[in-house]
Amino acid sequence: MRGNDQQAYDRGTSLFSPDGRIYQVEYAREAVSRGAPSVGVRTADGIVLAAQARASSTLMESESIEKLHKLDDHVGTASAGHVADARQLIDYARRMAQGNRLRYGESVGVETLTKYVTDHIQENTQRGGTRPYGAALLVGGLENGSPRLFGADPSGTPHEWKATAIGGSRGEIQEVLEEGWTESLSLDGGIDLALRALLTADDELDAGDLSVATITEHDGYQSLTVEEMEELLEGIDVPDDGESEDEEE
Amino acid sequence: MRGNDQQAYDRGTSLFSPDGRIYQVEYAREAVSRGAPSVGVRTADGIVLAAQARASSTLMESESIEKLHKLDDHVGTASAGHVADARQLIDYARRMAQGNRLRYGESVGVETLTKYVTDHIQENTQRGGTRPYGAALLVGGLENGSPRLFGADPSGTPHEWKATAIGGSRGEIQEVLEEGWTESLSLDGGIDLALRALLTADDELDAGDLSVATITEHDGYQSLTVEEMEELLEGIDVPDDGESEDEEE
Amino acid sequence: MRGNDQQAYDRGTSLFSPDGRIYQVEYAREAVSRGAPSVGVRTADGIVLAAQARASSTLMESESIEKLHKLDDHVGTASAGHVADARQLIDYARRMAQGNRLRYGESVGVETLTKYVTDHIQENTQRGGTRPYGAALLVGGLENGSPRLFGADPSGTPHEWKATAIGGSRGEIQEVLEEGWTESLSLDGGIDLALRALLTADDELDAGDLSVATITEHDGYQSLTVEEMEELLEGIDVPDDGESEDEEE
Amino acid sequence: MRGNDQQAYDRGTSLFSPDGRIYQVEYAREAVSRGAPSVGVRTADGIVLAAQARASSTLMESESIEKLHKLDDHVGTASAGHVADARQLIDYARRMAQGNRLRYGESVGVETLTKYVTDHIQENTQRGGTRPYGAALLVGGLENGSPRLFGADPSGTPHEWKATAIGGSRGEIQEVLEEGWTESLSLDGGIDLALRALLTADDELDAGDLSVATITEHDGYQSLTVEEMEELLEGIDVPDDGESEDEEE
Amino acid sequence: MRGNDQQAYDRGTSLFSPDGRIYQVEYAREAVSRGAPSVGVRTADGIVLAAQARASSTLMESESIEKLHKLDDHVGTASAGHVADARQLIDYARRMAQGNRLRYGESVGVETLTKYVTDHIQENTQRGGTRPYGAALLVGGLENGSPRLFGADPSGTPHEWKATAIGGSRGEIQEVLEEGWTESLSLDGGIDLALRALLTADDELDAGDLSVATITEHDGYQSLTVEEMEELLEGIDVPDDGESEDEEE
Amino acid sequence: MRGNDQQAYDRGTSLFSPDGRIYQVEYAREAVSRGAPSVGVRTADGIVLAAQARASSTLMESESIEKLHKLDDHVGTASAGHVADARQLIDYARRMAQGNRLRYGESVGVETLTKYVTDHIQENTQRGGTRPYGAALLVGGLENGSPRLFGADPSGTPHEWKATAIGGSRGEIQEVLEEGWTESLSLDGGIDLALRALLTADDELDAGDLSVATITEHDGYQSLTVEEMEELLEGIDVPDDGESEDEEE
Amino acid sequence: MRGNDQQAYDRGTSLFSPDGRIYQVEYAREAVSRGAPSVGVRTADGIVLAAQARASSTLMESESIEKLHKLDDHVGTASAGHVADARQLIDYARRMAQGNRLRYGESVGVETLTKYVTDHIQENTQRGGTRPYGAALLVGGLENGSPRLFGADPSGTPHEWKATAIGGSRGEIQEVLEEGWTESLSLDGGIDLALRALLTADDELDAGDLSVATITEHDGYQSLTVEEMEELLEGIDVPDDGESEDEEE
Repeated sequence: MRGNDQQAYDRGTSLFSPDGRIYQVEYAREAVSRGAPSVGVRTADGIVLAAQARASSTLMESESIEKLHKLDDHVGTASAGHVADARQLIDYARRMAQGNRLRYGESVGVETLTKYVTDHIQENTQRGGTRPYGAALLVGGLENGSPRLFGADPSGTPHEWKATAIGGSRGEIQEVLEEGWTESLSLDGGIDLALRALLTADDELDAGDLSVATITEHDGYQSLTVEEMEELLEGIDVPDDGESEDEEE
Repeated sequence: MRGNDQQAYDRGTSLFSPDGRIYQVEYAREAVSRGAPSVGVRTADGIVLAAQARASSTLMESESIEKLHKLDDHVGTASAGHVADARQLIDYARRMAQGNRLRYGESVGVETLTKYVTDHIQENTQRGGTRPYGAALLVGGLENGSPRLFGADPSGTPHEWKATAIGGSRGEIQEVLEEGWTESLSLDGGIDLALRALLTADDELDAGDLSVATITEHDGYQSLTVEEMEELLEGIDVPDDGESEDEEE
Repeated sequence: MRGNDQQAYDRGTSLFSPDGRIYQVEYAREAVSRGAPSVGVRTADGIVLAAQARASSTLMESESIEKLHKLDDHVGTASAGHVADARQLIDYARRMAQGNRLRYGESVGVETLTKYVTDHIQENTQRGGTRPYGAALLVGGLENGSPRLFGADPSGTPHEWKATAIGGSRGEIQEVLEEGWTESLSLDGGIDLALRALLTADDELDAGDLSVATITEHDGYQSLTVEEMEELLEGIDVPDDGESEDEEE
Repeated sequence: MRGNDQQAYDRGTSLFSPDGRIYQVEYAREAVSRGAPSVGVRTADGIVLAAQARASSTLMESESIEKLHKLDDHVGTASAGHVADARQLIDYARRMAQGNRLRYGESVGVETLTKYVTDHIQENTQRGGTRPYGAALLVGGLENGSPRLFGADPSGTPHEWKATAIGGSRGEIQEVLEEGWTESLSLDGGIDLALRALLTADDELDAGDLSVATITEHDGYQSLTVEEMEELLEGIDVPDDGESEDEEE
Repeated sequence: MRGNDQQAYDRGTSLFSPDGRIYQVEYAREAVSRGAPSVGVRTADGIVLAAQARASSTLMESESIEKLHKLDDHVGTASAGHVADARQLIDYARRMAQGNRLRYGESVGVETLTKYVTDHIQENTQRGGTRPYGAALLVGGLENGSPRLFGADPSGTPHEWKATAIGGSRGEIQEVLEEGWTESLSLDGGIDLALRALLTADDELDAGDLSVATITEHDGYQSLTVEEMEELLEGIDVPDDGESEDEEE
Repeated sequence: MRGNDQQAYDRGTSLFSPDGRIYQVEYAREAVSRGAPSVGVRTADGIVLAAQARASSTLMESESIEKLHKLDDHVGTASAGHVADARQLIDYARRMAQGNRLRYGESVGVETLTKYVTDHIQENTQRGGTRPYGAALLVGGLENGSPRLFGADPSGTPHEWKATAIGGSRGEIQEVLEEGWTESLSLDGGIDLALRALLTADDELDAGDLSVATITEHDGYQSLTVEEMEELLEGIDVPDDGESEDEEE
Repeated sequence: MRGNDQQAYDRGTSLFSPDGRIYQVEYAREAVSRGAPSVGVRTADGIVLAAQARASSTLMESESIEKLHKLDDHVGTASAGHVADARQLIDYARRMAQGNRLRYGESVGVETLTKYVTDHIQENTQRGGTRPYGAALLVGGLENGSPRLFGADPSGTPHEWKATAIGGSRGEIQEVLEEGWTESLSLDGGIDLALRALLTADDELDAGDLSVATITEHDGYQSLTVEEMEELLEGIDVPDDGESEDEEE
């Protein structure tokens, strides 16, 4: 179903197409695919979040294009897609985390926090007068000492992952993750896997285009410095197949 | 009535077509058919809920695609269709069950709970500014000691069933249920019937793609472990006719 | 006026067509005609309500497709049309009946109750942002000891009847009622007339496809059991003309 | 201006056409013309209201298609057009009459009551999100001892009349009234004139298809019985010109 | 700009056309032109209001088509255009006049009252969800002893006049007023001028089709009787040029 | 971009066109250009406001087409464009000025008052459900003893001016102002410049078609009488080039 | 995707196009590009803001087209795009800054203030019933003694910059900034860089067309006088390539 037929159903969040699809949600997913990828890896020691974000000008401060954010003491998030939408979702998640802390005097669970966010996303796919969020989030952290990683897409569906990617080149990156992930992965092994996955999709990335954060019981949410990143990148061996570059962009 | 004529009436929940149909509700049913099937079986000993849910990646945690959920001590639900919509309905059912418990100090009846949900679904098919829910639910449990099973579709109509299926391949599965169901079915017999019905529609399913829950007076809501599932599947004999695979998408 | 011209006026409850019609209300009537028929008969001894409702599967509980419902001690209703809509109207009628009982300490009158419902239906035909109800109701019962029977259609117009039908095959059934009804009809005579009328429209109905309820001063609202139904059906003689079957469906 | 041009302006109550017309109001007048006629006659002794209403089935109770209603002790109304709309207007008028009685301890004036109703009607012709009322009313009664008769049309304009008709065949009936009305008409003379006017438009009407009510200082609002109607009809001589039947329908 | 182009801009009160016009306001002016004319004349002794209103039937009470109304002790109004709209504006003006009296204990000024009304009219030309008023008013009266006359058109613009007309044949009538008006005109001279102006536009008018009211310091708002009107009409000499009749209608 | 393409973007205040324009605001500017011009001149001694307003009939009171209004003791305004819209803006400005006086006990600043008005105008260019104001204002007065003059256009942008024009023939008039304005201009010099500018655009204007107001520290807001105007006009020498007349209208 | 296809998705802030874009936001960016450029430079000593704004008439006061505004003691802003929209954003930022001061008794952080503004901007890109802001802002100032500079675009995305431009000729200006910016730039060096960048895009600018403001710890927000500007411009050497002029406009 293309052209005029499709157009009849894709201009409202409150409409199903005859084959049972909600086009505006699918287009919002497209908005996520247009963005640079982010990756999350659950390891035995904690969560690894990694993201690609290349500044459009040498004068742009790289922190301001940061895709990784702390949500609570032991919870962080990685985003992809329409940047302004992602920021709203991150703010929403933070407010929910703070509210939970105020009401119950303790940190919100990773799963609970993810579901607060996906409930909010889903609402924007069913009511009129608004559009879906054009962004996806990974929410990772420690819950009762155990590392957990969730993904939230523009339909508002939460999924728990061992490791996954959101944003552009997702298919290619997910393959690397599936091949490399093991239950016993150490935190360093998780960082290595995350970076390798991102570099497979774009092997011209350097330390300044990437960011990594870890969430562990002991250290909480920690961002890696550029120096740490550079050191790490030297140790990573990405198979140089021209194919991946062509597929990219 | 196809093409432009149909399109004139199918883009609003608050519209009848000239032949008295509400297309958006029918398209929402289509959204349910696009999803994997779930099955409910009422037995003499309690309710059996079973669902197919195959993870899109080996890294996805299977619990996060769980289609079976506990709603109250002796009530559970199986869903099919648009996942984010189904989650909203399940949350709505849980809030209703909790509210009932708070107000009346006792568990809500299975029928009453189903009707809370279908009232909410119907409202979304009549008011403007929203779309119908693209999901169906089976609600099963014990009511005054008797097992009861209800289905709720996107029009908001509740029906009570001895055994039924929602989601993809519904026709094929329902046939297996109709042939196999008897009033005196034991809980184990019900599990066997539910799994056979799902395997008829897709005989390549293994234990990891399926989930089963039982609701009995004595044990309340119980999920089967993967190990229990594997053991069960070995004992099931599904007639291998190529036809069923072809029909299946 | 057909095709594009008609379409210009039939997509809004708040629109008249140039010839003074409200198409959405007429389409809602079409939704009623798509459903199975229900019948009401006023007799000297009380009200008879009867309905056809054939389950789509042998596993569906017939009570859950019940079209006859008690509204108050001496008032009942029969419905036809879009099932989820009908349920809302029945719930609305029950709430009105309960409210009346709470406020005035007595049962609501049959006419008053019908008008509560039709006021509610009419509102949905004049305001924007909603569609009409695709359902019709018969409301029957005892009012100050006298049996009264009312019909409510999708326009929100109440009419009082000696006997009438709503839903599919209405014309055919109404003819049987007109021929058979007399002022002195006994309750049993009324049941016989109602069943004969329904069987005229579809002579393949058996006891399981039909339901009958009676409302009398002495016994209040009473449903007939399947056994009572079977016994009754044996005694009914329906002229077997092939014509009626063709007209049907 | 016909066809597409007209359609550009006739689908909203809040739109003028280029020639300064409000089409939805004109279409609502068409809805009134589709209905059976009602007549009001002011006589020296009081008001006469008469209406034609033929039941669509012999099993329909004629009171339930009654077009004449008491609004207050000395005020009554006759309606024409979309029945469910007319009922809303009548209920509105009754609530206004009761409210007036509660607030001021006396009966509302006929003119005041009519203007309450026409204000309400006009509002539905100017605001969006609703359609005009497809009904017209005659409001007649005693005001400080003097008989007064008002008409309210779908635009919300009130007019005072000596005698007038609303609904189908209005032109023909009005002619009879104009010829026959005199200032000194007695109540019986007024009844005779009203019935003659209705019979001119449709000479096959019998007592069961007609209803008459009178409002006098002494007796207040009184409905004629069928027996009184039959007696009256015998005395009426309607010129039998085939022409009137053709014009009808 | 005609046809489709114009239609793109004329279906919303909240739209300008590319040449800076608000078509719905212009169409509302057209609605005023469709109505019979009203005239206002300021004289040295007070205000004269006159209106043409021919009943559509001999049975219609002429007072009920009255276009002249008292708003306050020394203020009156003449209307033209869509009758139901005009009535709303007159009611609005009366409520404003009463409110002023209640709050400040004195009669509202003629100019202030006019501006209350035009503010209300303008609001209906700028906000969505409503249409402009299809009516114009003349508001005349005594303010601090001085006669003042204002006009309010469908755009909500107030103008003060020595003498003016609203409604059909406005151009023709205004010419007569411009020729005949002088600063020293007496009240009788003003009545004569007003009637002559109306008769110029339609020389078949008789006393029953016309109404005249005067507002003076001494007598306040006074309506002329039909007898007074007849006497006056005899004294008026209207030049009989066939041209005026053709232009009319 | 013309025709259909442009029409796609010009029918909503809440829409940008692909080239970043808001057409409804541009059309509102067109509504201003359709009106007669107004002029403001800042002089060393105070502000001069002047406007052209020719009555459409000799019977119209010229004060009622006045374009110059006092807003506060030392602040006045000149308007151009859709008259009813301009009146709303002037009322809004007056309410703001009064509110300021009540709250702070002192006169509002000229700049502050202008910005209150432009904020209100801008809001009508961004929210749906309304149209922009089709009017422009000049706001001039004394602020801490210094004369200041501001202009407010339909986009809601305020600008401060030494001298400027709004409304029809703006380009032509602005040229005269630019040539004639000097920092040391006296109040009389400013009046002369303003009148010369208006007469350049239309040299057939006489004293009755023009109005002038001055705002000085000593005398506050003062309107010139017609006699003063006539005297002034005699002393003005406008170059008689036929070109200006052609350009006009 | 051009023409009709694109038009299907670009007329609503609450719509994604099939390729995941929000056209109204992109068109709002176009509105920014239509405006004159503004520049921000972060130096070791503080922030430099510079803007081009040429008056359309010699009689327009240049302050009233000022693009640089103080937001708080140590925070300022430069704007570009639709002027009335920019003013709203500046007012919004000021209210937020004042609110922060009232609530916390201290100056708001530069980053926090920027995010208040971008949250507000984003909201206008997701909800229906409004359009995005057609303006961009640079927000610069001292935060805990350190100079920081942020940009906010019509999508509501905040970015931190060392130096950047918004508005017309952005690409060209950004190139000059990238070439000339160093970490150790003095305040005077920053002013020189900013002016050179603006002059590269348009070498005919003189002191009256430009404005510069500095924000330092010691002096807070300071605007340069025209005299200071003239002196500075003499010292700036802009390479005279005809190319830049062609690209401009």
